Amino acid sequence: MTLSIYSASIPVFKQILASLSAILDKADSHAAEKKIDPSALLSFRLYPDMLPFVRQVQIATDFAKGCGARLAGAAVPAYEDSEQSFAELKARIAKTIAFLDALAQADIDGSEERSITTGSGEKTKHFTGQSYLFHYALPHFFFHATTAYDILRHNGIEVGKKDFIGSY
Amino acid sequence: MTLSIYSASIPVFKQILASLSAILDKADSHAAEKKIDPSALLSFRLYPDMLPFVRQVQIATDFAKGCGARLAGAAVPAYEDSEQSFAELKARIAKTIAFLDALAQADIDGSEERSITTGSGEKTKHFTGQSYLFHYALPHFFFHATTAYDILRHNGIEVGKKDFIGSY
Repeated sequence: MTLSIYSASIPVFKQILASLSAILDKADSHAAEKKIDPSALLSFRLYPDMLPFVRQVQIATDFAKGCGARLAGAAVPAYEDSEQSFAELKARIAKTIAFLDALAQADIDGSEERSITTGSGEKTKHFTGQSYLFHYALPHFFFHATTAYDILRHNGIEVGKKDFIGSY
Repeated sequence: MTLSIYSASIPVFKQILASLSAILDKADSHAAEKKIDPSALLSFRLYPDMLPFVRQVQIATDFAKGCGARLAGAAVPAYEDSEQSFAELKARIAKTIAFLDALAQADIDGSEERSITTGSGEKTKHFTGQSYLFHYALPHFFFHATTAYDILRHNGIEVGKKDFIGSY
């Protein structure tokens, strides 16, 4: 029995990104029903010096695409970070899932000990594939995905943990 | 090169639990400095029907000990859920880390395809070791650990993402 680093990464990102997409639908419907300006939710921060909702979703997708690409030895796709609506954030998630789907399992499996470098200058970090996935990318990904959920929950969107965990 | 399910689980739980313990210290000091009753933070919820801070920390430790035990084929230790202070929550985290440390890597490695059952009655869920870890235990663990962080952050405790990610 062996464990595949592909199974430990791509399907996990996809599970939570799909959940997040469905949660965005609920937030969008909630805003429409309650006549809330969607930008009030999209720009909401849990504290003034925290990042707003839209950035939480953007960064969650960044860790998913960045991790998938680096494990596969592929270039990390650049996104514009210009989303201004729930629909645009959903499109960003869909684009991220499509990118993950296009990565070949054979390129990712075997990357456990591959050297991975992120950042530049003083912020350069060195990892192996597995330390990058388990100790850096997944924690950051879950941190931003959960904070996005918490922002909506704090604003009364009717979602629960089942919506976050999703289907597996 | 192979990936070890031990490396993908126990050190990840320990990393974030150690972070959470250090964050609890900051919350405790903040409350003392600002003359805030600690129970105002311990009982804080981001929304009235969400779980309070103390439960978020308890449940995060539950997923860590539950996952570690089940992957090792050991009994899941029962905790009393009686914590009423930051010090008591820190003790719970320390107890959880000590439990994880006592699990033998040899008992956990090889559990990728082991059948794991959680819950009972209608709530019974069946997993393999790896589906349990990656699609259920880690997402739940990060969900509660991040929400605990978000509650403190929302209340002005001076912590940042680096405190959450911690040392790896």
